[in-house]
Amino acid sequence: MDFSLSPFQQELQERTRRFIAEEVIPLEKDPRQDHHGPHEALRDELVARARRAGLLTPHAAKDHGGLGLSHVDKAIVFEEAGYSPLGPVALNIHAPDEGNVHLMEVVATDAQKKRWLQPLIDGHIRSCFCMTEPAPGAGSDPSMMQTLAVRDGDDYVITGTKWFITGATGAGFAIIMARMEDGSATMFLADMDQKEIVIERQIDALDSCFTGGHGVVRFDGLRVPATDVLGELGQGFRYAQVRLAPARLTHCMRWLGQARRAHDVASDYAKTRQAFGQPLVEHEGVGFMLADNEMDLHSARLAIWHCAWVLDQGEKGRHESSVAKVLCSEAEWRVVDRSVQILGASGVSDETIVARIFRDMRAFRVYDGPSEVHRWSMAKTIARRGIAR
Amino acid sequence: MDFSLSPFQQELQERTRRFIAEEVIPLEKDPRQDHHGPHEALRDELVARARRAGLLTPHAAKDHGGLGLSHVDKAIVFEEAGYSPLGPVALNIHAPDEGNVHLMEVVATDAQKKRWLQPLIDGHIRSCFCMTEPAPGAGSDPSMMQTLAVRDGDDYVITGTKWFITGATGAGFAIIMARMEDGSATMFLADMDQKEIVIERQIDALDSCFTGGHGVVRFDGLRVPATDVLGELGQGFRYAQVRLAPARLTHCMRWLGQARRAHDVASDYAKTRQAFGQPLVEHEGVGFMLADNEMDLHSARLAIWHCAWVLDQGEKGRHESSVAKVLCSEAEWRVVDRSVQILGASGVSDETIVARIFRDMRAFRVYDGPSEVHRWSMAKTIARRGIAR
Amino acid sequence: MDFSLSPFQQELQERTRRFIAEEVIPLEKDPRQDHHGPHEALRDELVARARRAGLLTPHAAKDHGGLGLSHVDKAIVFEEAGYSPLGPVALNIHAPDEGNVHLMEVVATDAQKKRWLQPLIDGHIRSCFCMTEPAPGAGSDPSMMQTLAVRDGDDYVITGTKWFITGATGAGFAIIMARMEDGSATMFLADMDQKEIVIERQIDALDSCFTGGHGVVRFDGLRVPATDVLGELGQGFRYAQVRLAPARLTHCMRWLGQARRAHDVASDYAKTRQAFGQPLVEHEGVGFMLADNEMDLHSARLAIWHCAWVLDQGEKGRHESSVAKVLCSEAEWRVVDRSVQILGASGVSDETIVARIFRDMRAFRVYDGPSEVHRWSMAKTIARRGIAR
Amino acid sequence: MDFSLSPFQQELQERTRRFIAEEVIPLEKDPRQDHHGPHEALRDELVARARRAGLLTPHAAKDHGGLGLSHVDKAIVFEEAGYSPLGPVALNIHAPDEGNVHLMEVVATDAQKKRWLQPLIDGHIRSCFCMTEPAPGAGSDPSMMQTLAVRDGDDYVITGTKWFITGATGAGFAIIMARMEDGSATMFLADMDQKEIVIERQIDALDSCFTGGHGVVRFDGLRVPATDVLGELGQGFRYAQVRLAPARLTHCMRWLGQARRAHDVASDYAKTRQAFGQPLVEHEGVGFMLADNEMDLHSARLAIWHCAWVLDQGEKGRHESSVAKVLCSEAEWRVVDRSVQILGASGVSDETIVARIFRDMRAFRVYDGPSEVHRWSMAKTIARRGIAR
Repeated sequence: MDFSLSPFQQELQERTRRFIAEEVIPLEKDPRQDHHGPHEALRDELVARARRAGLLTPHAAKDHGGLGLSHVDKAIVFEEAGYSPLGPVALNIHAPDEGNVHLMEVVATDAQKKRWLQPLIDGHIRSCFCMTEPAPGAGSDPSMMQTLAVRDGDDYVITGTKWFITGATGAGFAIIMARMEDGSATMFLADMDQKEIVIERQIDALDSCFTGGHGVVRFDGLRVPATDVLGELGQGFRYAQVRLAPARLTHCMRWLGQARRAHDVASDYAKTRQAFGQPLVEHEGVGFMLADNEMDLHSARLAIWHCAWVLDQGEKGRHESSVAKVLCSEAEWRVVDRSVQILGASGVSDETIVARIFRDMRAFRVYDGPSEVHRWSMAKTIARRGIAR
Repeated sequence: MDFSLSPFQQELQERTRRFIAEEVIPLEKDPRQDHHGPHEALRDELVARARRAGLLTPHAAKDHGGLGLSHVDKAIVFEEAGYSPLGPVALNIHAPDEGNVHLMEVVATDAQKKRWLQPLIDGHIRSCFCMTEPAPGAGSDPSMMQTLAVRDGDDYVITGTKWFITGATGAGFAIIMARMEDGSATMFLADMDQKEIVIERQIDALDSCFTGGHGVVRFDGLRVPATDVLGELGQGFRYAQVRLAPARLTHCMRWLGQARRAHDVASDYAKTRQAFGQPLVEHEGVGFMLADNEMDLHSARLAIWHCAWVLDQGEKGRHESSVAKVLCSEAEWRVVDRSVQILGASGVSDETIVARIFRDMRAFRVYDGPSEVHRWSMAKTIARRGIAR
Repeated sequence: MDFSLSPFQQELQERTRRFIAEEVIPLEKDPRQDHHGPHEALRDELVARARRAGLLTPHAAKDHGGLGLSHVDKAIVFEEAGYSPLGPVALNIHAPDEGNVHLMEVVATDAQKKRWLQPLIDGHIRSCFCMTEPAPGAGSDPSMMQTLAVRDGDDYVITGTKWFITGATGAGFAIIMARMEDGSATMFLADMDQKEIVIERQIDALDSCFTGGHGVVRFDGLRVPATDVLGELGQGFRYAQVRLAPARLTHCMRWLGQARRAHDVASDYAKTRQAFGQPLVEHEGVGFMLADNEMDLHSARLAIWHCAWVLDQGEKGRHESSVAKVLCSEAEWRVVDRSVQILGASGVSDETIVARIFRDMRAFRVYDGPSEVHRWSMAKTIARRGIAR
Repeated sequence: MDFSLSPFQQELQERTRRFIAEEVIPLEKDPRQDHHGPHEALRDELVARARRAGLLTPHAAKDHGGLGLSHVDKAIVFEEAGYSPLGPVALNIHAPDEGNVHLMEVVATDAQKKRWLQPLIDGHIRSCFCMTEPAPGAGSDPSMMQTLAVRDGDDYVITGTKWFITGATGAGFAIIMARMEDGSATMFLADMDQKEIVIERQIDALDSCFTGGHGVVRFDGLRVPATDVLGELGQGFRYAQVRLAPARLTHCMRWLGQARRAHDVASDYAKTRQAFGQPLVEHEGVGFMLADNEMDLHSARLAIWHCAWVLDQGEKGRHESSVAKVLCSEAEWRVVDRSVQILGASGVSDETIVARIFRDMRAFRVYDGPSEVHRWSMAKTIARRGIAR
């Protein structure tokens, strides 16, 4: 057993930390962002800075220009990047691109990689992942998918509506999940600038950390050639799992950084703000909250590292990633909520970054499977185990 | 012991409920509001509707045109009004006007009442309450107040900066709390349209339910004649308590309505949205959250009713209002947070009203004394009691 | 709305409080008790003291020698009685006798009342209630009942095993719930001193507050004449509800008293025990726990009063009693757990009464339907309500 | 980073697991134990079995006959041993002997080791650690120590009363902590069979896992020669820390095993017990509790492993061991409490081992510094750190 970081990890951690402090945090109040998220222009600038720092798309394979990070490496780097809400934008490691890169590296053809993956890794385009549907379609339960792909000659014709599609506006291409006539599901690749792809509207979400926000996307008989099927026909649900287990974990990593940021801001405030004759931090009522924050951050980090290590061993880690997802999303949320409370009026307003983190983070307990679905999945794993005695 | 509502209360409850459903909720998506709050024009329309319905400023004394509600009556009406974020605006029962009306009815002179209180009750003007200061001034600890009022002939000259002043922009007048040279504090009344009152900026807060938002207000040597002192000199801290205990409780009432709204929206969703073969509500994981909501709403309502009854007996109710404040702000928050979780993507976006309630309500655990200050106050009450055995 | 106690209630509250302090608490260390509970001799002495104080079986109808208490009256008296683990034994208001008295007053024949109910009310005998069965029989789910009653001439022959039967050892008679051949259930009355009733063993339970402890009871073809059927044939499940809703609530009342006791012991300790330069109570970490205790006690008391009032209005109060049961059993438990924590080593040992209360109370979250069954029942109530909008 | 176990650790884990299952669990119902703990005869038998299995006192240095385990090794073995309440007794790794062995290996003289440490490691005698005092002495705050050691010629004369001294009855020797005349503290070694050492009484504690229970020990002018001072004069508080950080962590390890046991018993029950038409485990209300158990066990284990690794690096790990102590004692407690709840009546009685674990474990949140003292210590660490930005 060994909890130490390798020299490579230490250097990367230090470099990312410095990059975030010097190149990203100063842009947090940049006007090129609104309640939907950072504008493309701000994103472009951030991406350019990360490129210069050698930190762009670090999880991509070395062949594709990335650093070929292991899952544990990612845990180190992504936490640091998450320390600013703009950090994952800069490093090009935000959802959904991060997971799309991972999935495409595993299952895309060379032609697909060249056409879509490489410019994505290079930070020249963005992508979206069209799976979730509005009621009565596929939400927590993917089996309820209603978007349909029908074979027509050498093409597939896709019809349906997707919902809460992160980054859709401005994305260069989409991975689209659709139900086949036989009930299975398939993933398709498609450029976004087609008239059969209609972004009906932007959703006003609590968060504002994703360039492009979240959109409602309608496919009006979109025609996709068979060559643009991603991976094999009928393997959509399986690929969704390939994508989701690690994608879920990278959420945990990035949000850990944000939770740590909130904790640091609250800690600093508690050390300087006086009340009732002493700094806040010397009040047990505040000090205990900070202690609870430390414990929650510690638990979250260890769960991430452990799960990342499991994935690095070649395991699928479905149980571990469910455990990490629930544990982290809830622990990190508690950290941010306590930080808001310690900051008082400064916490419930944009006087500090913490209110923004608070708004951004609430969805994490819902994204990639709400806590309830993961708890249920863990329970089923427990049920399947034999009787111990 | 009797938990029944009087016929008067029942009629008022029913009337308010209908008014909110028919006259207020339809305006919730009205474009005349932004992230700071409802605009004056929308407020005017809402106020006009409440006036027509005989529900405007119902807590004011009958002499002043109100309904002369008892605290328990208010508990009934304010909960119903709170069912919409716009309800308290319509009924003119929102912070800080609600508490200012109460305080001025108790301590203002007839001339002051005529000049400021009556138009406030009539809904023609709004007011603000200038107590909280930025660090290192008075936050949770009012004794740290730095705004100074210095006697100069028959006037007082006020200098200092107040912070997070709800409704300042657009308010007709202010109640200003300032420290005297002897260390005591005094409240002053002043029209807002004076050049020595500068609204430095609007604060971007999580909430958006108050017309006028929250401002930073600077007093640059504001000259207030002695006749505009509110109540007696040097009684500021005492009056703040007179105002705060019931004001704190009316927060509990209004937010109870909002929490109930969130619960209703989540319940309806849970009954109609399917996942994994049955409506969400039939999943224990969701059903238990709804059950917890019911228990929290019940606890909050009972604590409010009890404290209101204590105040109606002529007690100061400081301990009871601290208990109610912490209990309600935390229970109601849990209800809203669970409702968000049940709603999933709809909960973390403006697809339903619940995300707005979520943003609006977080500050309630901070306003009017954060939970920690009230817990500490309760602990001191316990410490003062004799040894039981 | 009115939270005041009537003069009758005040006098009774004061009298019971004094009785517990002067006549019961001094016996708490009496050696006539063990880990199963108080011995019969100690019970007899306690009952005699309550009889002298005019407080014996106060919930029984006046005709039967009780005080004919309303549910709200009971809330007042039972809380006071519960202040000592021996209080409910003294007043003869403990489970299962308390509920059995209530049920028999409603459904027993005059002959049954004379033979069994009157001596029970008079404190001369005890009773037990034989419903719960070991796996795979009726636990949380009464429909799984396996004990069978078969008609044989004018008699019924009962065969089966009951489990966790409180007070069985030493009881004068039993109410036995059995399944009929048609699947319905019926209640039967039977003297315990029959050779077809075998107490297989005593269960070593965490609690030690019930005289007779908890037993495993086997019916070996017990013959019960038709005249000893309690109420109507086939109405067993309905009667169980008649008995359970109020019985559940009286548990809440008694345990509220115990939780208050634990809180008082912990408060006193916190005021006198020093650590790190000041009394524990002046440490926020301890003071906040005491404040939380106060809030939990307050919530529990209000929920009890409200539900009792609902029952006094003639309602069945199934939803309200579920709410009260979960809310109280969990809030009162938190109070006791915090009290243990504040007391430290004194809390985890018999240096104070609190460890005993801790052991006694854990089962309350399981008895009379575990929290989970009640939450599920509340969820079904919510599901049955129409869509609000 | 590496979470894998070495072959040595794997073998030891497997061997300990088998030993507990085959040699220890079958003795759990052995009559040679009571509410104070296992009797000496049962302990002797258990120790003999561990000796035969090569698992006795495995943490002792190889020179002394142990296995010279690292802290991480201990984490593996002690968790397995803790799977039975009798496991730590068998392996001779229970408090206070485990910590005493560790401390004496570090600071005792050769003569002291020969006389006291070796027979302790060999399982031939037990020891106790006399630090805690009754009010107004040293409890959570060691600086309040009242037991005094006064120099008299070549001896020290110790006078005072210690409280909650685990294993005192039957111990061969004691480590005694006493205050010196200069305010510092010193540790002394003394055989227990001296007439100046009086065990005033046994304390009735919730737990029953320690041979010898917990006693009140009075020193009536106990004369200790200077050669029996443990370590250096005046270093008592420092040694207490040397002893406590790892001792605290071994508590976490042993109790993790017990929590896992409770979880396993509850899981098995949930898989077999039916209610409302399906096994309990298929009810989300139960399944979610089991999922929460898994997450808590996982968090606790990772925190232990991490802290053990930090100690193995030669760090003092005071912050890490505080974090681990609070995190584990609270997480493991939640696991046991949920397990009780799932088991229902079987959980609140001795029908399963879980009620015993429940009783045993409550003190863990108090022992070795209650959660509140550790939270405070963490807060002070946070306060000492510089301002981040």
